[in-house]
Amino acid sequence: MKLVLKISGKFFDEENIENFISLRNTIKNIVNEGHRLAIVSGGGSTARKYIKIGRELGVNEAHLDLLGIWASRLNAYLLTFILSDLSYMKVPENLEEFIEKWESEKVVITGGFQPGQSTATVAALVSEAIAADYLILATNVDGVYDKDPRYNKDAKLLSKLNTETLKKILETSQSVKAGTYELLDPLAIKIIERSKIKVIVMNYKRLNKILDIIHGKDIGSIIEPM
Amino acid sequence: MKLVLKISGKFFDEENIENFISLRNTIKNIVNEGHRLAIVSGGGSTARKYIKIGRELGVNEAHLDLLGIWASRLNAYLLTFILSDLSYMKVPENLEEFIEKWESEKVVITGGFQPGQSTATVAALVSEAIAADYLILATNVDGVYDKDPRYNKDAKLLSKLNTETLKKILETSQSVKAGTYELLDPLAIKIIERSKIKVIVMNYKRLNKILDIIHGKDIGSIIEPM
Amino acid sequence: MKLVLKISGKFFDEENIENFISLRNTIKNIVNEGHRLAIVSGGGSTARKYIKIGRELGVNEAHLDLLGIWASRLNAYLLTFILSDLSYMKVPENLEEFIEKWESEKVVITGGFQPGQSTATVAALVSEAIAADYLILATNVDGVYDKDPRYNKDAKLLSKLNTETLKKILETSQSVKAGTYELLDPLAIKIIERSKIKVIVMNYKRLNKILDIIHGKDIGSIIEPM
Amino acid sequence: MKLVLKISGKFFDEENIENFISLRNTIKNIVNEGHRLAIVSGGGSTARKYIKIGRELGVNEAHLDLLGIWASRLNAYLLTFILSDLSYMKVPENLEEFIEKWESEKVVITGGFQPGQSTATVAALVSEAIAADYLILATNVDGVYDKDPRYNKDAKLLSKLNTETLKKILETSQSVKAGTYELLDPLAIKIIERSKIKVIVMNYKRLNKILDIIHGKDIGSIIEPM
Amino acid sequence: MKLVLKISGKFFDEENIENFISLRNTIKNIVNEGHRLAIVSGGGSTARKYIKIGRELGVNEAHLDLLGIWASRLNAYLLTFILSDLSYMKVPENLEEFIEKWESEKVVITGGFQPGQSTATVAALVSEAIAADYLILATNVDGVYDKDPRYNKDAKLLSKLNTETLKKILETSQSVKAGTYELLDPLAIKIIERSKIKVIVMNYKRLNKILDIIHGKDIGSIIEPM
Amino acid sequence: MKLVLKISGKFFDEENIENFISLRNTIKNIVNEGHRLAIVSGGGSTARKYIKIGRELGVNEAHLDLLGIWASRLNAYLLTFILSDLSYMKVPENLEEFIEKWESEKVVITGGFQPGQSTATVAALVSEAIAADYLILATNVDGVYDKDPRYNKDAKLLSKLNTETLKKILETSQSVKAGTYELLDPLAIKIIERSKIKVIVMNYKRLNKILDIIHGKDIGSIIEPM
Ligand SMILES: Nc1ncnc2c1ncn2[C@@H]1O[C@H](COP(=O)(O)OP(=O)(O)OP(=O)(O)O)[C@@H](O)[C@H]1O
Ligand SMILES: Nc1ncnc2c1ncn2[C@@H]1O[C@H](COP(=O)(O)OP(=O)(O)OP(=O)(O)O)[C@@H](O)[C@H]1O
Ligand SMILES: Nc1ncnc2c1ncn2[C@@H]1O[C@H](COP(=O)(O)OP(=O)(O)OP(=O)(O)O)[C@@H](O)[C@H]1O
Ligand SMILES: Nc1ncnc2c1ncn2[C@@H]1O[C@H](COP(=O)(O)OP(=O)(O)OP(=O)(O)O)[C@@H](O)[C@H]1O
Ligand SMILES: Nc1ncnc2c1ncn2[C@@H]1O[C@H](COP(=O)(O)OP(=O)(O)OP(=O)(O)O)[C@@H](O)[C@H]1O
Ligand SMILES: [Co+2]
Ligand SMILES: [Co+2]
Ligand SMILES: [Co+2]
Ligand SMILES: [Co+2]
Ligand SMILES: [Co+2]
Ligand SMILES: [Co+2]
Ligand SMILES: [Mg+2]
Ligand SMILES: [Mg+2]
Repeated sequence: MKLVLKISGKFFDEENIENFISLRNTIKNIVNEGHRLAIVSGGGSTARKYIKIGRELGVNEAHLDLLGIWASRLNAYLLTFILSDLSYMKVPENLEEFIEKWESEKVVITGGFQPGQSTATVAALVSEAIAADYLILATNVDGVYDKDPRYNKDAKLLSKLNTETLKKILETSQSVKAGTYELLDPLAIKIIERSKIKVIVMNYKRLNKILDIIHGKDIGSIIEPM
Repeated sequence: MKLVLKISGKFFDEENIENFISLRNTIKNIVNEGHRLAIVSGGGSTARKYIKIGRELGVNEAHLDLLGIWASRLNAYLLTFILSDLSYMKVPENLEEFIEKWESEKVVITGGFQPGQSTATVAALVSEAIAADYLILATNVDGVYDKDPRYNKDAKLLSKLNTETLKKILETSQSVKAGTYELLDPLAIKIIERSKIKVIVMNYKRLNKILDIIHGKDIGSIIEPM
Repeated sequence: MKLVLKISGKFFDEENIENFISLRNTIKNIVNEGHRLAIVSGGGSTARKYIKIGRELGVNEAHLDLLGIWASRLNAYLLTFILSDLSYMKVPENLEEFIEKWESEKVVITGGFQPGQSTATVAALVSEAIAADYLILATNVDGVYDKDPRYNKDAKLLSKLNTETLKKILETSQSVKAGTYELLDPLAIKIIERSKIKVIVMNYKRLNKILDIIHGKDIGSIIEPM
Repeated sequence: MKLVLKISGKFFDEENIENFISLRNTIKNIVNEGHRLAIVSGGGSTARKYIKIGRELGVNEAHLDLLGIWASRLNAYLLTFILSDLSYMKVPENLEEFIEKWESEKVVITGGFQPGQSTATVAALVSEAIAADYLILATNVDGVYDKDPRYNKDAKLLSKLNTETLKKILETSQSVKAGTYELLDPLAIKIIERSKIKVIVMNYKRLNKILDIIHGKDIGSIIEPM
Repeated sequence: MKLVLKISGKFFDEENIENFISLRNTIKNIVNEGHRLAIVSGGGSTARKYIKIGRELGVNEAHLDLLGIWASRLNAYLLTFILSDLSYMKVPENLEEFIEKWESEKVVITGGFQPGQSTATVAALVSEAIAADYLILATNVDGVYDKDPRYNKDAKLLSKLNTETLKKILETSQSVKAGTYELLDPLAIKIIERSKIKVIVMNYKRLNKILDIIHGKDIGSIIEPM
Repeated sequence: MKLVLKISGKFFDEENIENFISLRNTIKNIVNEGHRLAIVSGGGSTARKYIKIGRELGVNEAHLDLLGIWASRLNAYLLTFILSDLSYMKVPENLEEFIEKWESEKVVITGGFQPGQSTATVAALVSEAIAADYLILATNVDGVYDKDPRYNKDAKLLSKLNTETLKKILETSQSVKAGTYELLDPLAIKIIERSKIKVIVMNYKRLNKILDIIHGKDIGSIIEPM
C-alpha cells in the first residue's frame, strides 16, 4: 500500500517525546510490512512566530507564507533525522522534486511547497502524484466534526462523510491569510475529488492505529471523494 | 513600475509572427521606460495535445498537469529566446526559483509551476511575490464579459468589476481537470484578494497598448480586488 | 543486458496510441527479464514547429537547437509518465546528470542534451557511458538502406553494414542546421566507432521485436563499428 | 568597503521589533553609502529547541547540528524578507554557493553551513572569501571581556585585543557539542589569523553605530589578528 | 564587443607566472573598454595524466573524457580565482548553465562540457550562443599552418584562410580518443560555419595583443567561416 | 559494517597502477561482504601545484583552499570511474549532498568540502553523519608515531593511542595554511571525540588488509576517542 501521512504542526508544538517515539515505531511497522509512506509536516507555532514578526515588519503575504514553509521544512527535517534509517535525507521543496526523490524507495518527508496553499494541499498533491491508497490527516482532534469542535462543545464526530458535506462544514471557517488554513482548504478538496483520493482524519495521539487502518479498521473520520 | 504579463496559451497556438513581433516591441518599450516585467506563458494546444495522449494511456492527473506545465515552459523558452537580450535565459520552475532569478533585473519568463493550478495562479503568485503594480492577463477576448462570450453572442464587456462579481460570473464554468482552467481559478482570485493585486484583462492582439495602461489609460477590463 | 533505445521524433508525431501501448509492453517485458534500459526521445514535429517560429523571428542557431531540445524533453516526459512505475521520474538534461540518475536502477529517459548535436549523438554518448550492449535506433523506416528511401523507391535494405559504409551512404544528406540531422550524424558515428558500440536500426512499428534482438535474432539493420 | 555582519541567534530570540527596524535602517544606510554587506544569522532558541528534541530522541551530533543550521537559515530568511529590496532572495547553504551569489551585488544572508562549526566560523569563512574589511560580531554583550560576563560581575570590557589574548580568554569555555559554541571557536580564530581579518565585537542593541565603525570610530572591542 | 577566448591546456602546463599576469592584465583592459568576455580553458597535462591512469585501469572512453573535463574545470577555477573581481565565481558545466550565468555581466569561465567533444567545440558553442564577434583560440603556435608545425619545420603560417581549407589541413590529424583533439574538431568547424563565427588563432604568448584585434589589427591567423 | 576510508593525496601522486588495482579489489571484497563504504580523497601534488600558482598570483586563502578542494575532487572522480559499478557516479561537494547521496546504497566518494578544513575533517564529518564503525586513514606511513617519522628516524609506531595523546604529538606540526594540514587537524579530532569515532591509521600500501580490520585484526594504529 502507498500512504501519505500529513502531520499537524500542532504535533510538533507539543514537544511531546512520547508522541515522537510512538510515531517512529508506527512508521517502522508500516515500512516493515512492506508499505510505502510519504509524510508532510505542518508548520505549527514556529511558523506562526516567524510569520507574526514578519507581518509586524510589513513583509508581504508571499514571503510570509515562505517563512511558514521554511518552518514546516524544519519540522520535516526533525522527522527526517528521527527516522534516519528509513527516511530520505533531503526534504523536497516542490512536487517535482518530491516525485524524483520518491524513486529512492525511502520514506520521503516534506514540509510546505508554495505560498498560497496549505500543507494539506501539499499532502493532496503528493497523494495524487503517487496514487496513494490513503491520505491520512493526523491532527489534534479525533476526526471531522459537524462543527468546529474548538468553539462548539456539542460538535458531533462524523465517522464517514463525503467531500460535499465537508465543504459545507468548512465553508465558514476558511481563509488564505498566511498560516491560518484549517484542516483542508478548497484546493486540497478539489484535488481529492478529481483524483478520487480516500482521506482519513484522525488524532495524532492515536498514530499507532495506522496499521489498523491499513488492515481495514475504521479510525477517526473517513472522507469519500465525490 | 512592476508588471506581470500572463500570455494565454492561445497566443502561441496562432503561430502569428506579427503578434510575436508586436509583443517583442512592446516589451522593449516597457523595459526602455525603466519598468520591470515578469511574463507567464500558458500551455495552449501543445499542452492539450500531450495531455490528451497521456490521458488515453491512463496517466494520472498530477502527471497530466506536469505535461501541460512542460508545454507551457516550452512556450516560455520560445519567448525567452525571442527576447534574448532582455530576458533571463532560464525559465524558473517554481516560485522560489522565480524569486531568486528576479534579482537579475531581467525580464523573467515562466510557464506553469505545479499540478492542480493554472498558469493564471502562477501569475497571481508571481505578482504577489514582487508586489506588482498590475497583473495583465492577455487572452483571446477583449476583457471580462458578463457571460462566457464563446457561447453567448450577447455577452457584454465589463470595463470595471470587482473580484466578487468575477467569482459569480466564473462560478459555473470552472473545473480543475488538467488543462481546462478558464481565465482565473479560485486560488488565483484568493491571492489577488489577499494581496490587493490590480488585474487587467485584455486581448493579446492589443499588447501594444500596455504602455498606455502604464500611463493610466483604461484598456480591456480592470478587476478590483475585494 | 544494457540497452539504449533511441525513439524517433516521428514516433510521437503519429500520436498513435497503439504504438505507445506496444512500446510500454515491450519495455515492461525487457525490464521483467532483468535488463537495464535507457531511452532517448527525438523532438519530431513539436521541435520543428517551435524552431520554425524562432527562425522567422531571428533566434540564433544555438537557441533554436535549445527549442528542439526542450521539445524532445517534452516527448521524454510523456514516455516517463506513461511508464511511471518503471521510469526515473526526472528527465536528465546532460550526460553527467544522466550518469548520476542511471544509478537509480530505473529506466532513465532523456531528450536532447546540447545544441549542435542530434538526439542520435545523445544516444551514442549514453551508450558509451553505460557500456551498452546495443544501441537501438527505432525510426520510421525498416533499417539502413543503400540510399535515402524517402527519395529512392529502389533503395535496398542492408541487413548488415559497417560504419565506413554508413558514412559513405549518409555523406550527402547530412547537415547541422538545427532540427535537420538524419539517422546518425558524424559525431554519433565517431563515438560508436571509438567505443565499439553495436547499433541496430529498426522500424518503431516493430518495437515488440526488441526482445528477439536481445535473444539473438536479427531485426532491421545491424551496424558494426569499425 | 566590504563588511560581514554576524548577528547572534539571541537577536532573533528577543522578538524585538524595534531591533529589527533599527537593523533594517542601518543596512539601508550602509548600502546607500555604497558599501557591500554579507550577513550571517545565528540559530538562537529555535535551534536549541529542535536540537533538544532531537537529542532526547537519539539523533546523532551531525544531524543535531543540521537542525541548528536549518533553524539559523530560518532566521536568515526572516532577515532576507525584511530587507527584500536589498537582499539576495535565496539563503546560500555552503561557502561555494555563497561565493556565487555574492556576484549579485546584493546583501547576501546566510545561516550555518556545516555540522561541527559555529555560525561565527561561517562568518569568518565568508569574510575571507570576499576579503572583507571588517567582520562585525553583533551579540548580546558590549564586546569581549576579560572573563565571561555572564558569570563574572567584575568582568572588564576590552576595547582592543589580539587573537592570542582572545584564545586564552575563551579557552576554558569552548565546546563543540551541537548548539553550544561561544563567540568565536578555534577554527574561526585560525581563519581570522591566517587571512588577517579585522574583527569587531559589539552589542546588537547598537547596530545603528555600524556606520560609525566604517567612518573610523571605535565601538565595542576590536580584535587584531596575530 | 563580445569575445570568446579559448586558452590551450598548454598555457597551464607551462606554469609561467608572467603569462598568467599578462593574461590578467589583458582581460582587465578588455573589460575596462566595455567589452564582454567568455573564456574556455583546455585540460592540458593534468587532463592527460588522469586519462592515462584511467585508461591503464580500463576506464571507458566517456569516463576518460570526463576526467579530462574535470581537469579543464580545475584550470578554469584557477583563472576564475586569478580574475576574481571580474569573473563569475562558478564554472558552468554545460551550455545551458553557461547561458544562464552569462546574464551576470561578468567574465564567465568554463572548462569542458561533455564527452566526445573538445574544449574548442565548447568555445564554438559558447560563441554561437552569445553571438560573439570573435572566437580567439590562444595556443602554443602562432596561428594555423599549412601543415602540422610540430612535425614540419617548413610549415607556413597562413594569415587568412577559410574553413574549407582548414578542414583539408586538419583532416589527417583528427581523432576523438579522449584527450587528443587538435586545434578544432569537425563539430567545432560545423558550428563555426553554420553561425558564421569569425575565428582567430594566435599564440598565447601574445595575449596582450587581443585589444589590437578588437581595434582591427591582424594577429595570427584569421579563419573565415564558409 | 559502515566504513569511511580516507585516502591520502600521496596515494594519487605515486601514479602506481598496482596500488589502484589493489584498492579496487579490496573495495569489491568489502562490498561483496555486505559492508557499506564512503571514501574521501586527498588532494596531493595536483592540489599543491595549483595552490602554488595561485599563491604566486595573490589569490586569497579561501580561493586557494578551493583549488585544493577541486583537485581532491578530481582524485575522487578518478576513483569513482575506476570503481564505476560500485560507486555513486557524482562526487558530493558538501556534507548535506553527501548525506543525500549516501541513500543510494553505493560507495560514495568525495574530495574536500570547504575552505579552512582538511580532507581528514571531511572524513570525520562523514563518519559522524553515517555513524561509521571505523574511520580508516590510509596514508604513506604505517600508523601514528610518537614523533613525525619524516624528520625522526627513531620515531616509534604506536599501535594504540587516544586522542589526548594524539593531540599532544601533533600539536607542534599543525598549520591551517591552505594545503598543509597533517594527518588530523584539531577540528577532525574534536568531531572524533564528540561522536566517539574509532580511527585507524594505516599505510595505503596495505589496503588489502582492510577486511582483516573488519574481522577484528589490529593493523596500523588504532586511535580511541576520549
Ligand atoms: N468541522 C471540523 N472538524 C474538525 N476540526 C475542525 C472543524 N472545523 C475546524 N476544525 C479545526 O481544525 C483544526 C485542525 O486543522 P488545522 O489546520 O488547524 O490543523 P492541522 O492542519 O492539523 O495542522 P497545521 O495546519 O498546523 O499543520 C482543529 O484543531 C479544529 O479546531
Ligand atoms: N465571463 C467571461 N469573460 C471573458 N472570458 C470568459 C468568460 N467566461 C469564460 N471565458 C473564456 O475564458 C477564455 C480565456 O481564458 P482561458 O483560460 O481559456 O485562456 P487563457 O487563460 O487566456 O489561456 P491559457 O489557459 O490557454 O493559458 C476566453 O476564451 C473565454 O471564452
Ligand atoms: N540510407 C538511409 N537509410 C535509412 N534511412 C535514411 C537513409 N538516408 C536517409 N534516411 C532517412 O533517415 C530518416 C530517419 O532519420 P531521421 O533523423 O529523420 O529520423 P530519426 O532520427 O529517427 O528521428 P528524429 O530525428 O525525428 O528524432 C528516414 O526517414 C529516412 O528517410
Ligand atoms: N570573554 C567574553 N567576552 C564576551 N562574551 C563572552 C566571553 N566569554 C563568554 N562570553 C559569552 O559569549 C556570549 C556570546 O557568544 P554566543 O556564541 O553565546 O552568542 P553569539 O555567537 O552571539 O550567538 P549565537 O551563537 O547564538 O548565534 C555572550 O553572551 C557571553 O556571555
Ligand atoms: N606523529 C606522526 N605520526 C605519523 N605521521 C606523522 C606524524 N607527525 C607527522 N606525520 C606526517 O603525517 C603525514 C601524513 O599526513 P598528511 O596530512 O601529510 O597526509 P595525508 O593526510 O595522508 O594526505 P593528504 O593530506 O595529502 O590527503 C606523514 O607523511 C607523516 O610524515
Ligand atoms: Co534515510
Ligand atoms: Co537574457
Ligand atoms: Co518511476
Ligand atoms: Co532582494
Ligand atoms: Co567574480
Ligand atoms: Co556507480
Ligand atoms: Mg492546517
Ligand atoms: Mg534524427
